[in-house]
Amino acid sequence: MKRRLLLVSNSTVHGGGYLEHCQQQIKDFFGPQVKRILFVPYALHNQDSYTKTARDKLKTLGYEVDSVHEAADPVEAVRQAEGIFIGGGNTFRLLKALYDHNLVTEIKNRVLQDGVPYMGSSAGSNVATVSINTTNDMPIVYPPTFSAIGLVPFNINPHYLDPDPNSKHMGETREQRILQYHEEPDTPSVLGLREGSMLLVEGNQATLLGSTKLYLCKSPLTAEPETLRQH
Amino acid sequence: MKRRLLLVSNSTVHGGGYLEHCQQQIKDFFGPQVKRILFVPYALHNQDSYTKTARDKLKTLGYEVDSVHEAADPVEAVRQAEGIFIGGGNTFRLLKALYDHNLVTEIKNRVLQDGVPYMGSSAGSNVATVSINTTNDMPIVYPPTFSAIGLVPFNINPHYLDPDPNSKHMGETREQRILQYHEEPDTPSVLGLREGSMLLVEGNQATLLGSTKLYLCKSPLTAEPETLRQH
Repeated sequence: MKRRLLLVSNSTVHGGGYLEHCQQQIKDFFGPQVKRILFVPYALHNQDSYTKTARDKLKTLGYEVDSVHEAADPVEAVRQAEGIFIGGGNTFRLLKALYDHNLVTEIKNRVLQDGVPYMGSSAGSNVATVSINTTNDMPIVYPPTFSAIGLVPFNINPHYLDPDPNSKHMGETREQRILQYHEEPDTPSVLGLREGSMLLVEGNQATLLGSTKLYLCKSPLTAEPETLRQH
Repeated sequence: MKRRLLLVSNSTVHGGGYLEHCQQQIKDFFGPQVKRILFVPYALHNQDSYTKTARDKLKTLGYEVDSVHEAADPVEAVRQAEGIFIGGGNTFRLLKALYDHNLVTEIKNRVLQDGVPYMGSSAGSNVATVSINTTNDMPIVYPPTFSAIGLVPFNINPHYLDPDPNSKHMGETREQRILQYHEEPDTPSVLGLREGSMLLVEGNQATLLGSTKLYLCKSPLTAEPETLRQH
């Protein structure tokens, strides 16, 4: 399988600039052969402003950015893309827009069949997985399904947070939420990507990159996640 | 309108017992005329255990508990109920189960037409409102819609949290999430109920009870929330 993915937990680490903590990994991932990256800004409301942020940053790394929201035909833009980057924001809004624009199957085909490199950040990492059932976001819009692009056989929880033993807040911890998910039938394993980390998927191998460790909540029922190396 | 609601932010305050912080308000709300309360445990996976917890606690306040999950006919159980209490847990799981059992319209009719008192806690407060678009929960199952019972013309965010200026976590604050919701068209106002607080709705008047203040995010477009007194 040609699949190549870079799934980033979050675009900005505390105190750093946009995509600053993962800029070397981005350059290594897209490499010198990719010249133009198709950006998908659907997760935020102001898509022009979001595109400018991504365009300015990726320009400093040597890449031109086309935004799918500026394309006359978004499906055709995906068909022509050399590389794809789906930015973070609200996962429900993002997934709904991907379905509204008929891009889910198109992106899947491009990545799995044609080997187009796919980078996602936060919500953009969620939609690359089996489903968005393990997003942290508020369900501000109703997508036609929670099933996502399905580029990998597991789910991700980005911005993963360890329980805070000193907290007096009574909302469920992140781990409790993921365990509640696994009470439901036929749920895949969940990889908690702490802020600062990212998952590089090449073919059938996944490698954890970045400054933090992974939290892995294996499915009680179904497929194991793929081979995983933590550097 | 006969409507009477007690919408509690959370069932347990840090360091306290189940429903302990609101037990006086529960007694005042259901009063001596209600003898039996219909409990809805759908938000948690172990409904037997959850029912026992609610039953034991409400017994100490003078109320017998019937659980809807023990009823041969849940719709008939709602039709016969003197009072309804929907407990917290996962809001998506709860709303899906309410639809699966055809209880949404039935509960709405009982509360708005017959004046049956309705108490909700956390997820049980979310489903009493316009929609579950402002829940904090993880979307572990896919309900047929995010529209909820609609007993009030606004939404609630339970367990409301103020932004923590010292946090290094880069996930959106609660306020940012609610503001993202209001970027979408035709969204109602959102009442953030901090832990320890609850909203008493009687007819067209809402009163804040408990130990914490309300966070109110008015809709940019649509109806104002009702008259609100903060005690």
